[in-house]
Amino acid sequence: MFDKNYLPPLKAINLLLAAVPEKPVSPETLKIENCYRRVLAVSIIAPEDLPAFSRSTVDGYAVQSRDTFGAKDTMPAYLTLRHEVFMGEAPGFLLHKGEVCAMPTGGMLPEGADAVVMLEQVQSVSDDTIEVMRAVAPGENVIQKGEDIAAGVEVLSRGHSLRAQDIGALAGLGITEIEVFGKPVVSLISTGDEIVPASSPLGPGQVRDINSFTLAGLIAGHGGTPLKKGIFRDDYATIRNALEGALGHSHMVLITGGTSAGIKDMTARIINDVGKPGVLFHGVSLKPGKPMIGGVVEGKPILGLPGHPAAAVVCFDLFIRPLLERLAGLDTRRLFPKTVRALMTKALASAAGREDHVRVSIDNRDGLLYAIPVLGKSGLITTLVRADGTVAIASDKLGLDAGEEVTVKLF
Amino acid sequence: MFDKNYLPPLKAINLLLAAVPEKPVSPETLKIENCYRRVLAVSIIAPEDLPAFSRSTVDGYAVQSRDTFGAKDTMPAYLTLRHEVFMGEAPGFLLHKGEVCAMPTGGMLPEGADAVVMLEQVQSVSDDTIEVMRAVAPGENVIQKGEDIAAGVEVLSRGHSLRAQDIGALAGLGITEIEVFGKPVVSLISTGDEIVPASSPLGPGQVRDINSFTLAGLIAGHGGTPLKKGIFRDDYATIRNALEGALGHSHMVLITGGTSAGIKDMTARIINDVGKPGVLFHGVSLKPGKPMIGGVVEGKPILGLPGHPAAAVVCFDLFIRPLLERLAGLDTRRLFPKTVRALMTKALASAAGREDHVRVSIDNRDGLLYAIPVLGKSGLITTLVRADGTVAIASDKLGLDAGEEVTVKLF
Repeated sequence: MFDKNYLPPLKAINLLLAAVPEKPVSPETLKIENCYRRVLAVSIIAPEDLPAFSRSTVDGYAVQSRDTFGAKDTMPAYLTLRHEVFMGEAPGFLLHKGEVCAMPTGGMLPEGADAVVMLEQVQSVSDDTIEVMRAVAPGENVIQKGEDIAAGVEVLSRGHSLRAQDIGALAGLGITEIEVFGKPVVSLISTGDEIVPASSPLGPGQVRDINSFTLAGLIAGHGGTPLKKGIFRDDYATIRNALEGALGHSHMVLITGGTSAGIKDMTARIINDVGKPGVLFHGVSLKPGKPMIGGVVEGKPILGLPGHPAAAVVCFDLFIRPLLERLAGLDTRRLFPKTVRALMTKALASAAGREDHVRVSIDNRDGLLYAIPVLGKSGLITTLVRADGTVAIASDKLGLDAGEEVTVKLF
Repeated sequence: MFDKNYLPPLKAINLLLAAVPEKPVSPETLKIENCYRRVLAVSIIAPEDLPAFSRSTVDGYAVQSRDTFGAKDTMPAYLTLRHEVFMGEAPGFLLHKGEVCAMPTGGMLPEGADAVVMLEQVQSVSDDTIEVMRAVAPGENVIQKGEDIAAGVEVLSRGHSLRAQDIGALAGLGITEIEVFGKPVVSLISTGDEIVPASSPLGPGQVRDINSFTLAGLIAGHGGTPLKKGIFRDDYATIRNALEGALGHSHMVLITGGTSAGIKDMTARIINDVGKPGVLFHGVSLKPGKPMIGGVVEGKPILGLPGHPAAAVVCFDLFIRPLLERLAGLDTRRLFPKTVRALMTKALASAAGREDHVRVSIDNRDGLLYAIPVLGKSGLITTLVRADGTVAIASDKLGLDAGEEVTVKLF
């Protein structure tokens, strides 16, 4: 049933990416606490040293390290205790040869000191004399000024998706607002004379709109802003009108449904009629997802997605996610898909010439993971509800063996 | 340096979990579109069949399957074309023996029909006669009424974290509002005389509050609501007051900082003085994270976290995440950590008797992943910024070999 003219999925997504300019959504300036999982629009150069002063990493005594050279249990170094450093304050004195000062973890080293002896390696002899039982090297138990981040260094680069620790690093440098790329707005146009809103009672022959909920969740979960435009009748003027209206305020438009042949052709015709270059491919050698339509109009992707829920989810991962990442300005070189390795519990056949994405549930048996195929028509939403992820069978493979180790891409 | 009385991390978290009742945060009722990644407070039983009628999965002709038995290219079955089914409408007729009706994908099967012949396997002979070139079995190319979800079946269970497809399934069943557990509120108390807000210029000896930003991001990213209570001086009355104030409106309290020995003891004393059972452990055989304090007061976890950023992140993953999952009502049996398998680029030593969590960056060399240790003191936030995840070295191992395959837990 697979047309030889259908594109392999990888070629199809590359066609789309080539037609969409590498121009992320315009940046906005936000407080760093609101930037979790947002994408940096500018590289961040450290404006100052972190830490701004040399700090002790232990509780103990700041010393001139050469005063401790050769010290051991049987031959301690006797040093004079003078001064004490308090947290968050400048020491305000110079540490001379032969002297030590009491030092809390995180305290600022006084001038003259170059190392800290741990509390556990010191004994008190009198009020102003201590024995040091171990030598310390210069810099030992100290984080040097600028050792974490040196002023002028690039800390985070444009296109990086900010994690919690990255926001912590910005806070540490006193950077409280940053420029991040705007979130891509993705409009969802549901089509189908049989589709009614989720809140509607069902008449005969009617089904509720599942895909706009599924896709809205996936879009929001991958850094986009979903915009549900509603449910439209399978009619050229109606859908064209909805598409043209959505294009003005969207970075991408998804048209779902229209699963029957005549309607699919109409969706492709509308994309072609709305602008250039129009439809780039119609049909991919992929299961589920074969009837997928990929188009671009004036740099904005317009995708026609099959109405079957499982197909919509597989197509999201293969086509929409990479486009969203492009629009979000994400530097994808350091992304790793969320995967687990698991053993197939049974053999699965696959037709040559198409890429099969099989839904599987994962069974964790004492730490060994098994992938159990979730069988069922791709029109069934429960195949997705019961599954934990998908296993891809490459188009040149004829299937998977029972016991074969596979990579499961988790939902 | 590891005290034999320090608890292994697994024992420590189990002590905490045993002292925190299995009572998630009180549920709230929300629209399903706002429930992405929220945790179900009730199991969902399907109120109706999905689909509500038997549907065609292809474009073609509805038939009585026995009329096609034996049909092939060389001996087609001749059947009478009567009626047409339109999307979203009841057929309104009965299909008799010897008849077919035109059928769009997703259309409702008329009474009398039990299968659909694909368009491609039919030829038109005249306006009212077609040839069927292939036999279809009963139910072929049909999704039966209730085949996706049967009325009365449990679709999703209490404690499930809702994914996009789960919300789609709810929409398909006409369920537009559901009960989910409330988000656990986690208060953050930053302590340390040297700590100033991120927006402050630095005086000598001062550092900005990094951990409250890092922890707030991690809490929000794992289903909690972070509440920053501010920065407090290292003083018994001040911190006790802050803790008692926070406990009233929080499900968990984190006290960060207080890295020096005297202050740590004070934090432990305050937790013991505020209520029962108080401190459960003080110190774990873990690097980074050794000075960790775990306590519970009246069923609410109170954790004292080391001030070092890397330690705070490792402690979040080992201690705070499981507690958050417990408070959020999450059924953890079907969770899989986000991991990749990678090859160590160099050998690493580890002390026996403690669990080492080594930060690594991942290098993707033509699809083969390598884990490169990010070395540096755990006080350095950049070790976390440069890392993609961590590799755990079990306490009974003396290290990792170069080339060894390891599991990297991604941030």
